[in-house]
Amino acid sequence: MKFTRFEANDNIFQGVIEGDEIRVFSGELFGDWSYTGDTYKRDEVNLLAPLQPNHIIGIGANFVARKEDLPESLPEIPVFFYKPSSSVIGPEAEIVIPDGINQVKFESELAVVIGKTAKDIKEDEVLDYVFGYTVGNDVTAPQFFHEDGHWTVGKSFDTFTPLGPVIETELDPFSVKVEAKLNDVEKQNSATDLMIIPIRKMISYLSKVMTLQPGDVILTGSPVGAELVNEGDVIQCEIKEIGTLRNSFVAARQSVKS
Amino acid sequence: MKFTRFEANDNIFQGVIEGDEIRVFSGELFGDWSYTGDTYKRDEVNLLAPLQPNHIIGIGANFVARKEDLPESLPEIPVFFYKPSSSVIGPEAEIVIPDGINQVKFESELAVVIGKTAKDIKEDEVLDYVFGYTVGNDVTAPQFFHEDGHWTVGKSFDTFTPLGPVIETELDPFSVKVEAKLNDVEKQNSATDLMIIPIRKMISYLSKVMTLQPGDVILTGSPVGAELVNEGDVIQCEIKEIGTLRNSFVAARQSVKS
Repeated sequence: MKFTRFEANDNIFQGVIEGDEIRVFSGELFGDWSYTGDTYKRDEVNLLAPLQPNHIIGIGANFVARKEDLPESLPEIPVFFYKPSSSVIGPEAEIVIPDGINQVKFESELAVVIGKTAKDIKEDEVLDYVFGYTVGNDVTAPQFFHEDGHWTVGKSFDTFTPLGPVIETELDPFSVKVEAKLNDVEKQNSATDLMIIPIRKMISYLSKVMTLQPGDVILTGSPVGAELVNEGDVIQCEIKEIGTLRNSFVAARQSVKS
Repeated sequence: MKFTRFEANDNIFQGVIEGDEIRVFSGELFGDWSYTGDTYKRDEVNLLAPLQPNHIIGIGANFVARKEDLPESLPEIPVFFYKPSSSVIGPEAEIVIPDGINQVKFESELAVVIGKTAKDIKEDEVLDYVFGYTVGNDVTAPQFFHEDGHWTVGKSFDTFTPLGPVIETELDPFSVKVEAKLNDVEKQNSATDLMIIPIRKMISYLSKVMTLQPGDVILTGSPVGAELVNEGDVIQCEIKEIGTLRNSFVAARQSVKS
């Protein structure tokens, strides 16, 4: 199923996309919900990020270019980082390049949505705790990385975490490709078997550190090919089985401050 | 006012502490609430962390030992980090030392609780957006810091963010001392004017990066004197005008896994 959040008639709804139609439901995405009977046409609504995440947890430098480059032994401590939920935007929303810099980096990623409380889970149990998958763009301003290695500021700006277009619950995460097109030119296109720390190992490790909760989103790393982009550029992050997450970059002065 | 969350008769309540009594209220801590008319004696309930934070944002290495050590110019990019809300515990709860290590570090801190949405705020506006203050213990396992400088794993374990005992709304954050006693021996005791990046500057900077939201908690840094501690140790983090946050350390094997 393809879950969405969307805006129509100045209200925000949750729905399930079936073909060109969205069937509205009410209730808890990770709990009990039921269809209201209302439907909308997909092209008459404004899709939002398909969820309001609890935590957003990313992993750094997690793809190699070719299988031969996969390391024989894995790092003892993976590079994890958080992004704030205030950085989330949906499909077609503008990514605002912060004041004082001209460029930011896009990073197309497979995003795992946790559906059940998960603590100390084994690798072979991980998929039982996954609700579904969406596409994430881990927008980054490396100019704001601290020289001692802290990425927090450079990852945290408002609009820096586009998510969408939907949460797909029926997906084999091991058979998909993570793609990105910048102004219609392919920049990233890697199968998920090029991940250095694979999904099951990554989430099992995290669950031994912290209790993962419904609504936690794990950005599983970006393929080689991410690059700095400018105002006016358009980025499409895509996993074909989920959909295309399209956003354009604007300079801070053009943003509408809320 | 001193706001609390507490457990009594298997239910969780919000309340305001007045002397030995807690007056129960219902509603939104950062919005509309009203007293229910029920009261409890403070010593017959189990105090919890006084809020369930939205984001928890920490700042690294933010205290000097003496005013003369304050740097003439501030760092261009402060060291900020996030802690997950899953790491929060309340007064008297046990801090669990993770499997595989013997020691963790305590860090007593003044924690600022944001009460209103804050974006691009000036330094002299910061206190208008603060709801109140509590005491935080930024428990840390430096053994889990990544060699490239990422602190995420070492800061994220369950039980690693004790908060409490209350949120004090009437506090001058510039006139308090941040203290810690380990097994009744003083280890930390610094006035907040020993902060390298002062509170107004810290929160104004953060608000230019991200939209701060009600329930965001900012841990403003720990005085010199924090050290590694062992199973069985008892830590009391204290700001006299707020109260004492007391927790004991246990080894992972003694923890009750939920």
